[in-house]
Parts: sequence; structure tokens; C-alpha cells
Amino acid sequence: MAAWSSSPSLRHLLLLRPRLPLSPTCLAGSFSRRHIHSHSRRRFLSSASSSMLTHGDEASTHVDANGVVDVNPPRGTRDFPPEDMRLRTWLFDQFREVSRLMAFEEVDFPVLESEALFIRKAGEEITQQLYNFEDKGGRRVVLRPEITPSLARLVIKQGKSVSLPLKWFTIGQCWRYERMTRGRRREHYQWNMDIFGVPKVRAEAELLQAIVLLFQRLGITSSDVGIRVSSRKVLLAVLNMYSIPEHLFTQVCVIVDKFGKLTREEIEKELMSTGLSSEAVQGIIEVLSLKSLSKLEEVLGSGVEAVADLKKLFSFAEQYGYADWICFDASVVRGLAYYTGIVFEAFDREGKLRAICGGGRYDKLLSTFGSEDIPACGFGFGDAVIVELLKEKGLLPDMSRQIDDIVFPLDEVLEGPASSIASSLRKKGRAVDLVEDKRLKWVFKHAERINASRLILVGNSEWERGMVRVKILSTREEYEVKADELD
Amino acid sequence: MAAWSSSPSLRHLLLLRPRLPLSPTCLAGSFSRRHIHSHSRRRFLSSASSSMLTHGDEASTHVDANGVVDVNPPRGTRDFPPEDMRLRTWLFDQFREVSRLMAFEEVDFPVLESEALFIRKAGEEITQQLYNFEDKGGRRVVLRPEITPSLARLVIKQGKSVSLPLKWFTIGQCWRYERMTRGRRREHYQWNMDIFGVPKVRAEAELLQAIVLLFQRLGITSSDVGIRVSSRKVLLAVLNMYSIPEHLFTQVCVIVDKFGKLTREEIEKELMSTGLSSEAVQGIIEVLSLKSLSKLEEVLGSGVEAVADLKKLFSFAEQYGYADWICFDASVVRGLAYYTGIVFEAFDREGKLRAICGGGRYDKLLSTFGSEDIPACGFGFGDAVIVELLKEKGLLPDMSRQIDDIVFPLDEVLEGPASSIASSLRKKGRAVDLVEDKRLKWVFKHAERINASRLILVGNSEWERGMVRVKILSTREEYEVKADELD
Repeated sequence: MAAWSSSPSLRHLLLLRPRLPLSPTCLAGSFSRRHIHSHSRRRFLSSASSSMLTHGDEASTHVDANGVVDVNPPRGTRDFPPEDMRLRTWLFDQFREVSRLMAFEEVDFPVLESEALFIRKAGEEITQQLYNFEDKGGRRVVLRPEITPSLARLVIKQGKSVSLPLKWFTIGQCWRYERMTRGRRREHYQWNMDIFGVPKVRAEAELLQAIVLLFQRLGITSSDVGIRVSSRKVLLAVLNMYSIPEHLFTQVCVIVDKFGKLTREEIEKELMSTGLSSEAVQGIIEVLSLKSLSKLEEVLGSGVEAVADLKKLFSFAEQYGYADWICFDASVVRGLAYYTGIVFEAFDREGKLRAICGGGRYDKLLSTFGSEDIPACGFGFGDAVIVELLKEKGLLPDMSRQIDDIVFPLDEVLEGPASSIASSLRKKGRAVDLVEDKRLKWVFKHAERINASRLILVGNSEWERGMVRVKILSTREEYEVKADELD
Repeated sequence: MAAWSSSPSLRHLLLLRPRLPLSPTCLAGSFSRRHIHSHSRRRFLSSASSSMLTHGDEASTHVDANGVVDVNPPRGTRDFPPEDMRLRTWLFDQFREVSRLMAFEEVDFPVLESEALFIRKAGEEITQQLYNFEDKGGRRVVLRPEITPSLARLVIKQGKSVSLPLKWFTIGQCWRYERMTRGRRREHYQWNMDIFGVPKVRAEAELLQAIVLLFQRLGITSSDVGIRVSSRKVLLAVLNMYSIPEHLFTQVCVIVDKFGKLTREEIEKELMSTGLSSEAVQGIIEVLSLKSLSKLEEVLGSGVEAVADLKKLFSFAEQYGYADWICFDASVVRGLAYYTGIVFEAFDREGKLRAICGGGRYDKLLSTFGSEDIPACGFGFGDAVIVELLKEKGLLPDMSRQIDDIVFPLDEVLEGPASSIASSLRKKGRAVDLVEDKRLKWVFKHAERINASRLILVGNSEWERGMVRVKILSTREEYEVKADELD
């Protein structure tokens, strides 16, 4: 379930490719036309100021003529210094906590996978940007662009030994490679939740609760964020209405997913090129513009699976209590080839950002790997857009350090006692920073900076009596205590 | 700080390379001679039965003629199904808790790094087994074999903006690539703790406390495990005694690290080939056999830095209270080129396993990247050997699932109430598994399997009165309660 962060802005394209002829034809050309979407542009600009989202420097990592190593991580990748790591850990903890509440089990897979898992012919962006290469043994491998195929692989591998349904989640890094752009990220982390073995939309209803629970834990409300829901069976029904062969289904889905990125004319052209009649193309485009379930029922008829599934899901939403978060929007199809039923994506209601997460049902993925199908659905939730949203809403929590004690010997001869005091406090479960060779003034500043609760000063005159001086930093209270009575 | 798991066994070499001429010469040849170390063999055999350590299947991942995808992860890599993931999470939580007690901050880096960071000429195993390749932009990149160079890179990048000392830890996956062997792992996870900016052995003393705290938390005692300590300055002193030029230092270190893997004759031969006199070679080998600090002082003299450092560290060990865990052993030099001072490794006292972790001081690494040096030391602690040890000692904790509630509607018409009950319990912080379309018998079995605390049955007759039936699974107590009073 890839939910990559944004495309580069038009401005970037213009600045960085000066030799590019700037005719409208070119901008609507095959590699660049989707970059003219204005939301993408705004998102990109805002992300540039976010530390969680810091891009690798433009320069590639290398050694210069003086033997100086480039200190930036490889282009498009991130380091996580302590403050960024605290933010990441906090976010992942939220993912994990929601997964726990939903009774999902955590799994993981190698970040390096066989390329064969990701080769699909539907023209998806994700498979066009594989970070693939040949290993030294001549095998085609890839830094995974998404996690779902690995999940499917493990489900097949486990075979009869597991009892369905399976409810699995994972948080892992995913990669993509693009040649032409600069400043775009090549990796992100993604939280995935997947259910295998539940054919009913109950599974989708559970996934949607997980997403809403996450938003609620983060302080995000249903006036900040909504979840658009549709079903690929809507498109299937339209294809049936026009007697379009089903083998075109996946291709049509991948094309119509570009709505909002391409112009209507471009979409029509791509659809026509698959061999569809212009009548069918108009029919598809009309249905995709529907935003009401009753209208959909009118157009497709109530006997259609798409309508029944969606009605059921909206009724579940009422019962779970998250109906105000979701809305029907036929234009949602998602970009992955393998979705077969309900699809959904979360979006910020101000329309500034790209999709926050996305997912859907993929009942036929296992057979593409040569195995028997198991009904399945899941979502991917990236680490980038959500952090931007939290920043924008002022919802990021205080990310400062938190230390229990600083132990500071006032004299070098007291390093022994300081060692045993620090050691014994740690054994009691306290987080202790042992500081030496600094001035007292530095130590006080340091204590403030790392939010220490106590300062434990080991001085000569106190130590002669087996005592240390304790300072509670919040209250500025100070007292002496026997070293072995500290706790 | 690479601490890779073991080499393959001799048996494997023999079985899997039948065309290999089996003369002793060949087995002592350049690629295979270290595999005759008996400890490695035993370790490998025991690891084969460990699920945490499951190897990728021998077959490479690919698609067969019928379009069936190989369900194994790429050769030498692991999937983490739920039970293995629980073990990994538990172990990483121990790493994190000890790091917290020691007041270290977590950082992280891309698993993909510039190859330039890892190019060193000392003939280390780690640089001979780089998982490197060229990306599509023509850059030489590598799946990192160890984390220390990335740490150093970030320290340089942060520059004056950080206040020393830095105490950082990280837990990350590391990779290696070997062509010839089968069944060996190509990835492992490694916990690293590093201190930048502390020139005194206080830093080493802190790192050793962290390692001991970890062992203690895991239930491992000092009769199970010891930590061998020496200093590379011991070798430096010997080189000085024989007026050997210092530029040979690193090379000599990498060679003598092979003690125990190569025979004494092989070590001597390699040392001679660097241009050392046979007198010097004998001198080195004699000093390396020393196991007592007083003997070392006798041989080198007390004015030597190596002796002073080691004495200081052993006195710290007394003050921290972990002296029974550590012992001096001059044969410890560790295999990484960049160590400059104290080096150490933890080992199981039964001698069955490879080193559990290893580390040391590396005061000159930053200048190899073209930056000003900052004194530094750290260790790497892999996820493989420790798990084997815990298994062997029967110290692995209960890894079963733990769910609070199972909500089960006894009739399909009750799926609505079941949804709101599950939803509201989750909002209250309870981990709830919502089960449908199963027989009651299955549900009871399931409850046992996932260690559910309560079973909440939503039945028609109770629901008519707004009630549900609750069963406490540990006591078999059963009662009715109003649905909206559940908590």
C-alpha cells in the first residue's frame, strides 16, 4: 500500500531542467504532466521546512579530491538525529498502540526483496520507480517499494499452519528510485495493517476504525481529516454496462487514478488508447464524478455488489461511531493494480496535502503469485504527510529529552563514588547521566537542556560523611542524603 | 561495530561444494580456512534450529515456469512472522531500556549508504563482504555492513551545533554479501552504543556497564558470560619495542585478530608478509598470550599507556560493581581497522558461541573522513548470538500473545451491537479482537490461544435487555453486564 509523499513542484522542474523546452506540450508530456497539480506543489514547499522530512543534500555522497567524505546521507534519504528520532519513535508508538487495540500482530520482512514480487504490467507509478538492481549472484532484487507483496508471500509460505483470519501489521521502510527529479525522497516509513481471510466488508470497517483511532490519538478531528471511500466494483459495473472485457479492468483503474493529476482530456485520451469506445469513456468519467451513494444506486441499480458493499460499510461506520469521518467519493480508485473492491484514502479537508494514507481490498493478489487466493484488505500509512499535518495543526507533542538524574563529582578524586552512585541508581531503574570534567555552570545548563529531574552532586566534604547533595530541579529544593539511601 | 553471526560449518562446506578438492591445503586456503574453527561449527549447527535465526531458503527467490513466486525471502534474509517478531521486539525493548538507563539518545541512519564510507584498505572481513552495487545514477552505494561510519558521518555533519559528549545508540539492520557460502545470513540487527567526546576510559567503563546491565536484565550471570578486555595500545607498545613503523599498526591488528581462526603458523606467515622480522613476530605473539595485567606490566613496563588505561578501567569496574564480569586478555584485538585503544568482547564461558558483542575506542575515525578527530568509543551487539545463548540457558520469556477482550456476536443480526461494543472498549484502551462467523467452540479455543482475558458474548436474549454475557477466562467466572457499563 504505497502512499508516497509528493511529486516535485513545477517550479523545481523549471529551475532544474533549464534545457527543457517549456511548451505546454512538453509539460503535459509523459514524465512531467502530473507535476502541474497545484496541491503537490504546495505540499512540496511546506515539506522543505520540516526536519522530519529533511531531504538528502542535492550532492551525491562521495569523497572529494582531498579525501573528504560527503557528510550527507545518500540523495533522497534521511538521517535521524536524536530530535527527529524522538518524533519518529513517538509516531511509531502511536501506530503500535492502535494496532494493539485492534488486536493485530506485528510482523516484518527484509527491506530487500526479490524483484519478481513487484513486477506488474498495469503501468503503476510504483513499479516504474523500483529501486532495483542485480546482486553479485546475478539475482534481480529490489529495495521494496511497498510491503503488501511481502505480506502475501509470508501468508502463502505459512500455508495451512495459520488459522484465518490473520490480522497483521508492520512498520517498515520503503524505497523508490527516480532518475530525473531532485530533492524528492527515495525512502519513507510506512505503517501497514492487513487482514487476510475476511471476505466481508467487516474487514474494511475494522481498518477504518484503526485509522480513525490513530487520528483521534493524535488529536486530529473529523473536521481536519476525512476518509474518501469507494469500490473498484463501481468501475467493474460500468465496464459491464458497456460490455468492456474484464482484462482491461486493472489498466482502467490505474488510468482513472490519475484524475486530479492529469486533465480530463488526458485521462480520456489514455482510456481511449486501451481500446474503449468514447461512449464507455464518457460513462466511466460520469460515474467517477458521483459523490452520493443514492445517486450511484440510481445509476448502477441496487443489485450491484459495489452498492451493497458500500451501503454495508457506511452502516458499519454508524455502529462503530466514525460515520462523520467517511464519505463516498466515486473518484477514489487508488493507484495500485491489485485492488479489487473497497478502496479508501484519508485526506486533509483543507486540501493542502496529498493522501495521508490509502488502502483497499485485494482479493486476487495471491493468485498472481501462483497460489490460491485468500480475501484480503489493508492500508499503508506513511510517515511524511501525517507529520506535516500535525505540524500545521500545532499537534506535535513536546519532544524534549527526559532524564532522571545527573550525577556530577565535584572533584576528580570522587570519580569512584560517582561511578557507584550512578551504577546503583541505574540498577534501580533511573535514567542517569554521569557528567565529568565540566564546570558547575555547564552542568546546570545541561540539566535544564535535558530536562533532568535531579542533580546529584558528589562533593568532598559531604562524601567524607557518606553523603551527597541532591537538588530537585523543578522546585530548586536542595538537601543532603546518605549516598546509599538514594533512590 | 560488526558482530556477525557465525561462519558455516565444515560439514556444510563439504556437503555443499562437492567439487571442492578436500585436501588440507584447500581447507586452509584463503576463503575457507577460518571455517575450521570448532566453535563456529557448533554455533552454526545450533542456530539452524532457532526460529529467530531461520535462514533464507537455499533457493534464490524467483518465479518458476508456472509463474509461481518463491515464497522465501531473498537468500540469507529473514521474515519475522508474529512469534519471531515478538521475540525481536522484546529483545529490542531490552536494548532500548538499558540505553535509557544510561541516558543515551536514539538515532538512526539509512540502511543504504555511500560505499565511500566503508572503503578501507586493512583487509578486514567486513569490507571484503560489502553488499555494494551501483545505483541507477551511477553512484556506488552499499547496504551498510555496520553502523559506526554513519554515526561518525552524522557527528561531522552536526558539527559545532552539538554539545559534547554525545551519547547515542541505534538499533539497525546490517548487511554483508558473500558469494560462496550457503545458508549463512546476509543480514542481522545490531544494537550500537557510542560515546563521542570523552577521551578517558570513563567512556569504556560506561559502555561496559550498559552491556552488563543488559545481561542482568536478561537473567544472564557472570558465570554464564564474561567480557574480555585489552587495548590496541598493547600492540602499539610492542611495535615500538621492535621499532616497527606505525603505518603497519592497523594491518597487524587485523591479522592478529584471526587468532583462534587461523593456526599460529598461518598468523606468523601473514605477519612476516607485512615485512616484520621474525623476532618482532615472536614478540607480538608472546604478548598476545598474556592473560594477566601484572604480567603485561612486567613485559611492557608501567609507563606504557596501555597498562595505565587498562588498570584504570579495571578500577572503574570495581566501583561500578561489574569486576566479576571482565577479565584482561591480550589476545583480544577485534577485527575492525579503526580501533585505537581499549577493545573488548563478551563471550559465553562455555565457549560454544561466537562473540556476543564487541567494541572499542576509535579516536581516529573522523580524520579518515577528512574531519577533525573526536575521541570516541562504542560497541555493536547483534541479535543472533544473544538469542542462542538465551535459548540454551532457558532464559527466553513467554512470548505468547496477550489480548484483553474477544467480542463475539452469537447471531449475524448482532454485528451492529458487536461493532459498537468493540469500538467503545478499544476507545477505553482495551485490545479487542472482534470475531465473527465462527463456532463458539472455535472461539473458546481461539481465546486460549491468544491468551484473551475476557470473552464478551453478544446474544439475542441478553441484547434485548441491553446486556451482554462476560466470561473471565482465567477464573471461568461468568456474568451479565449492561453493554454500556463494560470497561
